[in-house]
Amino acid sequence: MFQQLGLVGCGLMGGSFALALKRAGLVGRVVGFSPSAATRERALSMGVVDAVVSSVAEAAQGSDVVLVAVPVAATESTLAALAGALSPTTLVMDVGSTKCDVVAAAQRALGAYLASFVPAHPIAGKEVAGVEHADAALYAGCQVILTPSASTAATPLAQADAVWRALGGRVRHMSASAHDAAFAAVSHLPHLLAFAMMNGISGQTHSSELLSLAGPGFRDFTRIAASDPAVWRDVFLANRDEVLAQIGHFSASLAALEQAVAQADASGIQSLITQASTARKAWHLGADADH
Amino acid sequence: MFQQLGLVGCGLMGGSFALALKRAGLVGRVVGFSPSAATRERALSMGVVDAVVSSVAEAAQGSDVVLVAVPVAATESTLAALAGALSPTTLVMDVGSTKCDVVAAAQRALGAYLASFVPAHPIAGKEVAGVEHADAALYAGCQVILTPSASTAATPLAQADAVWRALGGRVRHMSASAHDAAFAAVSHLPHLLAFAMMNGISGQTHSSELLSLAGPGFRDFTRIAASDPAVWRDVFLANRDEVLAQIGHFSASLAALEQAVAQADASGIQSLITQASTARKAWHLGADADH
Repeated sequence: MFQQLGLVGCGLMGGSFALALKRAGLVGRVVGFSPSAATRERALSMGVVDAVVSSVAEAAQGSDVVLVAVPVAATESTLAALAGALSPTTLVMDVGSTKCDVVAAAQRALGAYLASFVPAHPIAGKEVAGVEHADAALYAGCQVILTPSASTAATPLAQADAVWRALGGRVRHMSASAHDAAFAAVSHLPHLLAFAMMNGISGQTHSSELLSLAGPGFRDFTRIAASDPAVWRDVFLANRDEVLAQIGHFSASLAALEQAVAQADASGIQSLITQASTARKAWHLGADADH
Repeated sequence: MFQQLGLVGCGLMGGSFALALKRAGLVGRVVGFSPSAATRERALSMGVVDAVVSSVAEAAQGSDVVLVAVPVAATESTLAALAGALSPTTLVMDVGSTKCDVVAAAQRALGAYLASFVPAHPIAGKEVAGVEHADAALYAGCQVILTPSASTAATPLAQADAVWRALGGRVRHMSASAHDAAFAAVSHLPHLLAFAMMNGISGQTHSSELLSLAGPGFRDFTRIAASDPAVWRDVFLANRDEVLAQIGHFSASLAALEQAVAQADASGIQSLITQASTARKAWHLGADADH
């Protein structure tokens, strides 16, 4: 499918994409760039990349597909560094968790190459970072959201669609703004709440005693609290308005439950929990809405 | 170890205890009571109990151990019904998620038999209820908190300790009030937040579209939101003051993060996330505090 993948950022997301593309036989060769020499060497020794290059621009040279898998805050400078070295037919994608900021960065940075850029967000990840955790199966069965803009050309969009499907992804297209609003609700807010929950416990005396008593419910609820601080700092900043709006929705629901508990309103508490429990029981990972 | 277990409440917790005791060869016979005829029949056909009885009191007759595994709100009436039928040497335990209310109920209901009552909270469970999910391995490896009071005699306490250890539990003793304060933080609050989070999404337009985009992080974060409404209503009511105090701790942490996001304070956000992420990475299920 592709002659050469230029991988910019050889972490968990980028490394997994390279491994998956190779395993599927969809790429002839992978060249990779990371600002860290240790990461470059590790990617090479793991077979994630076939060659390392020493600049972002070199990763674009001779590549017919480029994946930008860097922290969201580094997207614009990375795209700007790529722009001069791209060929007009090279498909360029990212894997960022926010999309409006990425689309805006691409509009500023890519110039004539904007038509070939397909913003992508594969809904996959782990609470561990780094190429050492790269996994060829990371994207199998996961949703991949593509957020083409009016500037995106049909051919690269179709290519992006095909490559993610070939890796086992379930591809959906939506606008960048719809994406960011939705993920503020179902991803960014839960992360923020999990961080706040951990901090609320850490701030108490005997917090290690409290934590020693925590069980499986706590384990699953707080799993995402172990996520990478720099990544989530960038997500919250990039999607600030939507995240604040979702904090507002949550706070209203929390206040309703708090009030019912404070008033010892048994039927009110049960009704609010039943609403939540029913909604959660009806939800299943990977069950797409009817559209 | 025991001649006969009298099981009052044949749900997930009680049924699993009976199966575990039988599998370990620690009981000769199990008699069970449930207010539901369907549950009694199911418990019998599954081999969870060897015989069913038609009242709480009958479950005590001839039993040298009685497990009360009923909704917390039903504990007092259950203990009162048992009191007249117990022998002085019968070990009585419960499995409730709150302990101060159980201790108070036992003081009112058990009279002279209070010395033989050992309040217990095994930190185990599933988001499914009912005897059909009973599992002989439910308690293996889990923590079991015993909260003896000044009235608890040494012999039943030692028996309780031994039986939970024999089922694979890691037993800890603490006061009922310390238990309730701690579990408000690490269990009751996370459940309440998960309920509020689901309700915050359900209340929005396009909530089914939002939910269709949710991924593995959301799945794990909200898993406990599917828990049984009646059980958690009772927990929040029984442990109201501690739950409200924990909502206060959480709300302060949430406000700090919200303010940092609203002010686009990148270093403030990163610092708060790092605190949470570091604490969560340092935590491991089953790693007891140093005491």
